Amino acid sequence: MVDIFKDELNLSSNEPDVNINKEEFIKVINSRRSVRVYTNEKVKEEDILSCLKLGLLAPNSSNLQPWEFYWVRSENKKNKLVEYCLNQPAARTAAELIVCVAKPMAWKKNKKKMLDLITKNDKKPPEAVVNYYKKIVPLAYNQGIFGIRGFIKSIIIFFISFFRPIPREPVSFADMKVWSQKTTALACQNLMLSFRAFGYDTCPMEGIDSYRIKKLLKLSNTDQICMVISVGKRAKNGVYGKRIRFDDEDFIHQV
Amino acid sequence: MVDIFKDELNLSSNEPDVNINKEEFIKVINSRRSVRVYTNEKVKEEDILSCLKLGLLAPNSSNLQPWEFYWVRSENKKNKLVEYCLNQPAARTAAELIVCVAKPMAWKKNKKKMLDLITKNDKKPPEAVVNYYKKIVPLAYNQGIFGIRGFIKSIIIFFISFFRPIPREPVSFADMKVWSQKTTALACQNLMLSFRAFGYDTCPMEGIDSYRIKKLLKLSNTDQICMVISVGKRAKNGVYGKRIRFDDEDFIHQV
Repeated sequence: MVDIFKDELNLSSNEPDVNINKEEFIKVINSRRSVRVYTNEKVKEEDILSCLKLGLLAPNSSNLQPWEFYWVRSENKKNKLVEYCLNQPAARTAAELIVCVAKPMAWKKNKKKMLDLITKNDKKPPEAVVNYYKKIVPLAYNQGIFGIRGFIKSIIIFFISFFRPIPREPVSFADMKVWSQKTTALACQNLMLSFRAFGYDTCPMEGIDSYRIKKLLKLSNTDQICMVISVGKRAKNGVYGKRIRFDDEDFIHQV
Repeated sequence: MVDIFKDELNLSSNEPDVNINKEEFIKVINSRRSVRVYTNEKVKEEDILSCLKLGLLAPNSSNLQPWEFYWVRSENKKNKLVEYCLNQPAARTAAELIVCVAKPMAWKKNKKKMLDLITKNDKKPPEAVVNYYKKIVPLAYNQGIFGIRGFIKSIIIFFISFFRPIPREPVSFADMKVWSQKTTALACQNLMLSFRAFGYDTCPMEGIDSYRIKKLLKLSNTDQICMVISVGKRAKNGVYGKRIRFDDEDFIHQV
């Protein structure tokens, strides 16, 4: 496989466009269906790892990467997880289960990692970037103890907003949840499409006991379960019906 | 283009797997970067519509489709939107801007649409499905006036949870926001990857004045701005640096 996971830091790179056969991509989107029943076929370990890595290439604000994937492999934990997915066939018959976790507080650790990377690799780190991670990121994401900083921030934003446009969120832990959940969802969609491209199927599950799953994985209180994604090969009647979408004009507006 | 937008209702269909050239897909994920500066090149109208439609093929719980895309075409509105994206180059230099809206209350209207579809097309609609949309969906998503139903539900869930696993969310409007935002984000990732496959670039923007954007688009109070996505062709230095990801083992756990 091509080296898709380059990680070097180089702030002045130029990435040229590449040519893509779009019909192959459309096939991926179009054939991705939520599969409720899987065959007994295994999923190759190397494919799972490749897809998880492709998942992590989703975009995310300020590169704070507020996501984590838990690939639940132990027989015991997996059985419990199936139970916490309410024993639905999409979990029960799946070859593999992945818990996708959103981390509203990851900005703290990852901001530090960004600063370490920038100041380590670069002899003369760009001041604007250092400043961004030292000052702007905490200003945006730190809501303080009991959300007090966020509350004060929301009042200041309210007054400034009379004079000019200003970002309104995040100003509370609830906003941090939304931020991390939607960012993690971007990675989840990458992940599901990747499995499809690799010849596998998936089902995203939300009707789950998030509390028990958090205990099972020993997650912290602030961590959020975004969804559980099951993986395998579709059984013959694994898709429960043709895809239904309401009229496009109800969802696509031109204004 | 192949007919990717079939909408028929057929609850016992069997969708076979399809063969995909995964290298083409990997190129899409890998070459998708947040582009901050675009060229003057236009984006074909038909491509935008195709990509928006592909976006809407993302998975979503109970097929409630709590998302909407606003393609902002009027010169006046677009100028304002650029301002509300704080005039950042990714918005200012973009050929097109799309506002992605999460709709926490869309379940009501769309549940009804699902019921209409099922009972209209099918002579003998499957009772379990009718029951699901008539009873289970409101039970799950209706939080009631001032969230009172949700609050009562959370108490009942608390007691039941001692005896068996049970879904914990959504039990508040905050949970409905998370639900609709993460579902919309799945569609957003579909959309961004689609543009990439079609030869275009995107930038998702969160640092925006969501309040002013809601006013601009005449959205309801409950609607949420998920993100604004700009579209165009990347300028030579449109990507601000190589992609940085921290060590995979910090994000991919095998348990």
